[in-house]
Amino acid sequence: MEKAGVICYNVVANLVWEALFLSIRIGILGYGNLGRGVECAIKQNNDMVLTAVFTRRPPETVSILSEGVKVYKVEELISHKDEIDVLILCGGSAKDLPVQTPEYAAHFNVVDSFDTHAKIPEHFAAVDGAAKKGGKVAIISCGWDPGLFSINRLYAGAVLPEGKDYTFWGKGVSQGHSDAIRRVEGVLDGKQYTIPVEAALESVRNAENPDLTTRQKHIRECFVVAAEGADKAKIEETIKNMPHYFDEYDTTVHFITMEELKRDHSGIPHGGFVIRAGKTGWNGENTHVIEYSLKLDSNPEFTSSVIVAYARAAYRLASEGQKGCKTVFDIAPAYLSPMSGEELRAKLL
Amino acid sequence: MEKAGVICYNVVANLVWEALFLSIRIGILGYGNLGRGVECAIKQNNDMVLTAVFTRRPPETVSILSEGVKVYKVEELISHKDEIDVLILCGGSAKDLPVQTPEYAAHFNVVDSFDTHAKIPEHFAAVDGAAKKGGKVAIISCGWDPGLFSINRLYAGAVLPEGKDYTFWGKGVSQGHSDAIRRVEGVLDGKQYTIPVEAALESVRNAENPDLTTRQKHIRECFVVAAEGADKAKIEETIKNMPHYFDEYDTTVHFITMEELKRDHSGIPHGGFVIRAGKTGWNGENTHVIEYSLKLDSNPEFTSSVIVAYARAAYRLASEGQKGCKTVFDIAPAYLSPMSGEELRAKLL
Repeated sequence: MEKAGVICYNVVANLVWEALFLSIRIGILGYGNLGRGVECAIKQNNDMVLTAVFTRRPPETVSILSEGVKVYKVEELISHKDEIDVLILCGGSAKDLPVQTPEYAAHFNVVDSFDTHAKIPEHFAAVDGAAKKGGKVAIISCGWDPGLFSINRLYAGAVLPEGKDYTFWGKGVSQGHSDAIRRVEGVLDGKQYTIPVEAALESVRNAENPDLTTRQKHIRECFVVAAEGADKAKIEETIKNMPHYFDEYDTTVHFITMEELKRDHSGIPHGGFVIRAGKTGWNGENTHVIEYSLKLDSNPEFTSSVIVAYARAAYRLASEGQKGCKTVFDIAPAYLSPMSGEELRAKLL
Repeated sequence: MEKAGVICYNVVANLVWEALFLSIRIGILGYGNLGRGVECAIKQNNDMVLTAVFTRRPPETVSILSEGVKVYKVEELISHKDEIDVLILCGGSAKDLPVQTPEYAAHFNVVDSFDTHAKIPEHFAAVDGAAKKGGKVAIISCGWDPGLFSINRLYAGAVLPEGKDYTFWGKGVSQGHSDAIRRVEGVLDGKQYTIPVEAALESVRNAENPDLTTRQKHIRECFVVAAEGADKAKIEETIKNMPHYFDEYDTTVHFITMEELKRDHSGIPHGGFVIRAGKTGWNGENTHVIEYSLKLDSNPEFTSSVIVAYARAAYRLASEGQKGCKTVFDIAPAYLSPMSGEELRAKLL
């Protein structure tokens, strides 16, 4: 009896140890596509556990996937700070993250996916100040672009300094362009796909390092549901000439039914290519092509998976006593993997 | 006159400053294809300068490309330690590096391209001990595999834990297999190309995560120059059944003339693919494919270019006071680029 008791005690102690100490405890702020993706990604990583979800909506209206995990009002977030190792911010880059990331980096190790490329330096500065003051680690702009694509631009450029890199996006759904279509008068709903121009891709892959205009790099394809009696010719005209969004591209507009849109265009696929061609040799006599590509069924779920890997890095960096804002450029690959240095060298190097 | 003197003094002072302090001073040990590639890569990187080349051959028999740079006997290497920030070891993995890297890591920051995957843990331990004792930074196994391919296996695995990765090599020249051909009786010369099986690549790209045998992944194509009167049927038979090298593969053997070999097969191209497909979502409902590929005109020159980027990292890590052995997994991408953190965030993120 005593022996069984000891064994039982050990099993329980192990479970408690694992739950309390070994698992990285994650909090999610914002439960849209990205928040749900983070929740799914945590389930795939044995060293992580979801502590709670925080939302601006009434918590009782938010139904999450993880059994036994609570949803709280955002106002309660700070009071849970001791239960969260890394807080993942799943808001939007336009309005949420510029406020939230600096605010919460003062209290939590945080990871965000801020993706307004032009405003990254400004965001970095604000977050860095807050994180340093709070003694926390913040990793911003995680995902695939910015994120994995950025890393590939950096590695390729460092290895082939005499070269040129190109980034192509798609085929995939652009949320911003889809929203723009939906704002056109007479449009009930719509989806926009960004598609790389095949001839441009080929030229880049052939190391021709072409000068490409915006129009030569991508085409835009729109699937639009028009209201009954709407002027389709005018809708098409309005979309194709929309400044910034469509006027610099070759755009095709297809009118379909709501049923077709729901059936054929309800996914959020995306992807793209980072390609760099460069020369080596005493007189640049040899050419090399580095290509990185992604083909994604779900843009938010893949982005979430990248974010969650960087949450592991944030936890480890914080454990080492590091502070301040980091980007994917500042983080050694090993921090992302659950494997130890020994395992990585033996299995993946 | 005085003013002109001051300007002139400043110009000279700047040049001296740049040459002495800002440029990373590189030494090369071993001047074969890899050493020459490193020399060419240094020329492409403005923040680096080649200090000297060290060789086991009589220095007067070694003619290098860089004007005004000296070639010394390897025995003189240690006496030049104060003129070298990073020593790049360009020997072979079979016999040179297991001895040289630990030996010189005690005196220099070093980078090598040790590529015997199975022996990396052992090599790491030996180099780590020496580098820590000497207070130096050593980066081992730089190149593309091990190297950039390893990094991509790590990132892809960390982001898509529920998936499987595949590495394909080629189309490219395998030095080891070409050497094996040349040892066959009746063979004057020969080149072997490793080629991925197209159907396997397609299956992997389609996220089918197939189980592939050695034979199903790569084919081997040999171009052989036979001696006059040699038994070609026997040569072909011997090659195709050679244990470890060819017996597990579908191999084709083409007999060509020495002239054809020199004309059509004198390059050292290589390349390959790292592909990982994985699933995300609460029930694995979405699939993603990450693909990284290289198409290289010159295997040694590209490898050298990777090594030189890591020499920059070794220099910076040493400047921060770090010590010991590192691999590409341990080094944040930013260390490889000549750009500052600010520039990287503004331009590449």
